[in-house]
Amino acid sequence: MAGTAGKEVEHLIDLMAKLPGLGPRSARRAVLQLIKKRGLLLEPLAQAMAEVAIHARECGICGNIGTSETCEICLDPKRDESLICVVSDVADLWAMERASVFKGRYHVLGGVLSALDGVGPDDLRIPQLVRRIADTRVTEVVLALNATIDGQTTAHYIADQLSDSPVEITSLAQGVPIGGELDYLDDGTITAALKARKTF
Amino acid sequence: MAGTAGKEVEHLIDLMAKLPGLGPRSARRAVLQLIKKRGLLLEPLAQAMAEVAIHARECGICGNIGTSETCEICLDPKRDESLICVVSDVADLWAMERASVFKGRYHVLGGVLSALDGVGPDDLRIPQLVRRIADTRVTEVVLALNATIDGQTTAHYIADQLSDSPVEITSLAQGVPIGGELDYLDDGTITAALKARKTF
Repeated sequence: MAGTAGKEVEHLIDLMAKLPGLGPRSARRAVLQLIKKRGLLLEPLAQAMAEVAIHARECGICGNIGTSETCEICLDPKRDESLICVVSDVADLWAMERASVFKGRYHVLGGVLSALDGVGPDDLRIPQLVRRIADTRVTEVVLALNATIDGQTTAHYIADQLSDSPVEITSLAQGVPIGGELDYLDDGTITAALKARKTF
Repeated sequence: MAGTAGKEVEHLIDLMAKLPGLGPRSARRAVLQLIKKRGLLLEPLAQAMAEVAIHARECGICGNIGTSETCEICLDPKRDESLICVVSDVADLWAMERASVFKGRYHVLGGVLSALDGVGPDDLRIPQLVRRIADTRVTEVVLALNATIDGQTTAHYIADQLSDSPVEITSLAQGVPIGGELDYLDDGTITAALKARKTF
């Protein structure tokens, strides 16, 4: 198709194909759809991207993405500032917020420790977390990190860094997910759920 | 996550989720990636979309998407103008071009006939095709339509419309796809391949 669709269209396809979840084929389909829905989708999307490129920024306190220096969660006086939930990415913060059960503040690490990928503590917002806990009246830190090796390594590292602090450190419970069928669960989950069994 | 990411970011996620191949979750992931790669991806993408919104247009002759009144294929003097390949969508034209074997011109219908979806001949570029064949020196029309019921209905309808014309009408061969394993093929394909068997 080299040269048949005009270089602007091909440039757009190349860029779209770089998005996570879209390969070359779905990028082509998406671009054709965009051109068909020019006024309804293409123009608003171009506009929305330009707006986000100008306005989006990291919250200086927690690392959440917002449009002001301090994000809405950190500014919300109804949020319990003595409770901090540590997550690896903004996507995880959004996932926690969708559950609408956590009423404290967040701290986004920006990744997890990974020897393989060369990610050390200073590449993440771990020093900022330690400082934040020392400087403010935090009483509990909830480690809401992925139940993967890197996620749990990061959790242990943070717990270690905070061991001199009087703050209480907790982590999300591990067990059978709601709606989960035992037959489809891995051994690790079943082991964790059995170890953490509760009185019924 | 209502209200936690700023309304510009949420508006962008809503729009991205309307793209084919992206649901709400992958739209969120894509937007986070875009914000992380602001200079490398978000700004160029906003720019590329704005350019396409301004420049992209349908070729007046064949219906291909390009950036001028007549597309590069229709303008290319090396393309055989006596040979027209009829496809349902621009994506199919691009697929044909990737195979780089067809050296004629195209005609994009803009869909296929569908009683269920209420798509009739006048909703497609079929009248334009009939006129184009009457007005120019076309000797062969290749029907490269999907091997689906609607695709083949459309092919039969077009062949019928052109039955008074001296033009030769052909269609893509049906059979075992290259690399295809018989065990995984449907009965219809095996039947078609057997009926169209050739001397080895």
